[in-house]
Amino acid sequence: MLNLASWLEEKLHNLNLTDTMELPDGFSRLSFSKEEKEAHHQFRKIARELELNTYQDEAGNQWAVWEVDKKAPTIAVGSHLDTVHNGGGYDGVAGVLCALAAVKALKNSQFLPTKNIAIICFVSEESARFGLSTIGSKAIAGTLDKGELASIKDRDGVTAKQAMESFGINWKTIEQAVKPVEELESFVELHIEQGTQIEGNNADIGVVSGVACPVRLKITVSGMANHTGTTPMNNRQDAFVAIAPLVNFVSDEAMKIDQTGERSLVATVSTIHLKPNAMNVIPGEVELGIDIRSVDDVTKRDFAEKIKDYCSEIKRKHHVNIEITTLVDNDSVLLNSEMQYKLVHACSGIGLQAHVMDSGAGHDVMNMATKWPSGLIFIPCRNGLSHHPDEFASIDDMVKGTRVLVEFLRMETAGL
Amino acid sequence: MLNLASWLEEKLHNLNLTDTMELPDGFSRLSFSKEEKEAHHQFRKIARELELNTYQDEAGNQWAVWEVDKKAPTIAVGSHLDTVHNGGGYDGVAGVLCALAAVKALKNSQFLPTKNIAIICFVSEESARFGLSTIGSKAIAGTLDKGELASIKDRDGVTAKQAMESFGINWKTIEQAVKPVEELESFVELHIEQGTQIEGNNADIGVVSGVACPVRLKITVSGMANHTGTTPMNNRQDAFVAIAPLVNFVSDEAMKIDQTGERSLVATVSTIHLKPNAMNVIPGEVELGIDIRSVDDVTKRDFAEKIKDYCSEIKRKHHVNIEITTLVDNDSVLLNSEMQYKLVHACSGIGLQAHVMDSGAGHDVMNMATKWPSGLIFIPCRNGLSHHPDEFASIDDMVKGTRVLVEFLRMETAGL
Repeated sequence: MLNLASWLEEKLHNLNLTDTMELPDGFSRLSFSKEEKEAHHQFRKIARELELNTYQDEAGNQWAVWEVDKKAPTIAVGSHLDTVHNGGGYDGVAGVLCALAAVKALKNSQFLPTKNIAIICFVSEESARFGLSTIGSKAIAGTLDKGELASIKDRDGVTAKQAMESFGINWKTIEQAVKPVEELESFVELHIEQGTQIEGNNADIGVVSGVACPVRLKITVSGMANHTGTTPMNNRQDAFVAIAPLVNFVSDEAMKIDQTGERSLVATVSTIHLKPNAMNVIPGEVELGIDIRSVDDVTKRDFAEKIKDYCSEIKRKHHVNIEITTLVDNDSVLLNSEMQYKLVHACSGIGLQAHVMDSGAGHDVMNMATKWPSGLIFIPCRNGLSHHPDEFASIDDMVKGTRVLVEFLRMETAGL
Repeated sequence: MLNLASWLEEKLHNLNLTDTMELPDGFSRLSFSKEEKEAHHQFRKIARELELNTYQDEAGNQWAVWEVDKKAPTIAVGSHLDTVHNGGGYDGVAGVLCALAAVKALKNSQFLPTKNIAIICFVSEESARFGLSTIGSKAIAGTLDKGELASIKDRDGVTAKQAMESFGINWKTIEQAVKPVEELESFVELHIEQGTQIEGNNADIGVVSGVACPVRLKITVSGMANHTGTTPMNNRQDAFVAIAPLVNFVSDEAMKIDQTGERSLVATVSTIHLKPNAMNVIPGEVELGIDIRSVDDVTKRDFAEKIKDYCSEIKRKHHVNIEITTLVDNDSVLLNSEMQYKLVHACSGIGLQAHVMDSGAGHDVMNMATKWPSGLIFIPCRNGLSHHPDEFASIDDMVKGTRVLVEFLRMETAGL
């Protein structure tokens, strides 16, 4: 597939709007930015080269359709082209690119599908700009909360409404992006793993069984700010001293559960804000953000309870006040088992080793799965690194991913 | 002293530019601000009511002099009128106010000193605006680094030079504020304690023997940022997990040393910056700021070494990189023992209980002590709270402080 490899290489650069993937500051194509719009434009250009019908739906998602029969069912594949601040050029892009490549390969081989094949380029998957993720796929699945959307702003004070309008979206008709269930038969997303389980299991491709949704807690500890030089050690209510042991409790306990449990669990104290955060003042208030993930909802919620119990101990021991807010707690998404089977089958059919695994990160497929039988496959990325300028997936692995999509689409759309 | 009490009450309000001391946001008279200038103006007004000669020196300090004989020695007393952001109305003000009140009381009693008495209102004591403290007293003592002063800016980008010029200071002649050693005989500052040792020892007044200067360390820990959802617990380099135990190590070890040592020691992890500080990213870098204080320089430096050793252990155990920078490390200031004796004597002469103690916070007296025999007395403040809108010192305690200054000045300047 030398030809396919060089095509992937070229189009990878086009979709990333770049001549080189080696950029020290990475890629910043935020939600509804002109950079995301330009990437969508490149997507349309490539889709037209492949003689696909393209259109932008009412929420800003780009569709490219290989339409063989208006009355036939449609199989959809796709991912997104937006990124976080200073992110990589593979998270999202790899999925869109391999979907395009799969259609190109099928067309090159003179294959004639019996069903329509649609490639979706979802708009605004990352939460980096507005704090809300997977906006495009929510709109298609009909789970987008327009009230919430109307209330959010980016760090410069630009509202989501303003950003969407400048992207060319009519605010009044966003709801019309929702697809009736009968218009699609199934959906498959390809994505980089953002972890190292595929290599760790000597496999080529990850086939995802469940997507973990986080429980997120905000822990606010109130002690008493005072002068660092004049307040004796035995007369302090240092909020940071009180809560610091929680950082290691979360890490140690997650490690234990992860090593003994059936389902994996990860938990991280990932944010902190100290007040007043001044060299000569004892920390009076600390706010911690904790991210807990497991595909097993019981495991993750039990873990959140453990943290709450530990905080009660701290409260008693250190005479500080602690408030705990649950910011996020959604059920995890278990993907359709028949789709998993088909994707594993597609891998083995072309001699690739599939590893069935959970996804710790959320993806557009979560929303599509609420309405259609959906699947998610992973290709490896170097050192599991993502959301980082050093994010990297090899052309070789993208070729493998494309071949799995080709095999899957061929099986699903071949005539009898 | 009913008359003195009501006078203190009235002038406390004047110097604070307010009708009420109960302000939920406290007082913000930053260095070289128009608010500090207006407070200096009020100081001059009161000084002129007391028939003192006033002038502003080349660095912006206000002087008010009871001149009896140009050839006689001069005894100086004073403090400052600037505050931190949202600070209290007593830190600094109490010292200036009691000095004015002492002169008023001496004049009311028809006392005729044999030496000149100067009240100094030091400009810009707090580091809150420019990160540099005690600028006025440094200028008088001749220890101000003009190169450093030329390089600093506030958070809005205003340079110290611009701020000083708008305060009415000629940048070119600041150095001329330095006082020849022979122009002053001694200096005494009165300040609120910003701690609770005076009450804790059933005393009325604190007489300070030494002023602790901090050792300040910046600890930068580098691990590896990665996705919180996709990175397994056993494959992380979480910089926050690695360094969090240091927060409790610093607090626990300081407590131990403080309880067993001869000199007191306090140490605080008071600042933290996490990168990227995002909910879905494992902390890749943590920067901690540590403030260590003891009047015993050996004790504080040994403690800094202990922290460095502990960091080496963390480095080995967690495979993170740790860099340690010493931001500040100045020798502590031991105050003149004869001045201490005189001040204790002044207290007992009027029936007040003095408690000899160290100061954990820095004050203008540190700079004056490099050139002249200098003393520092503390009056209590409620709950030891300062740099806070709830900062409070009673009129009763200010009356006591004034009486100590009166007694000290009377002893120092009485004829034979």
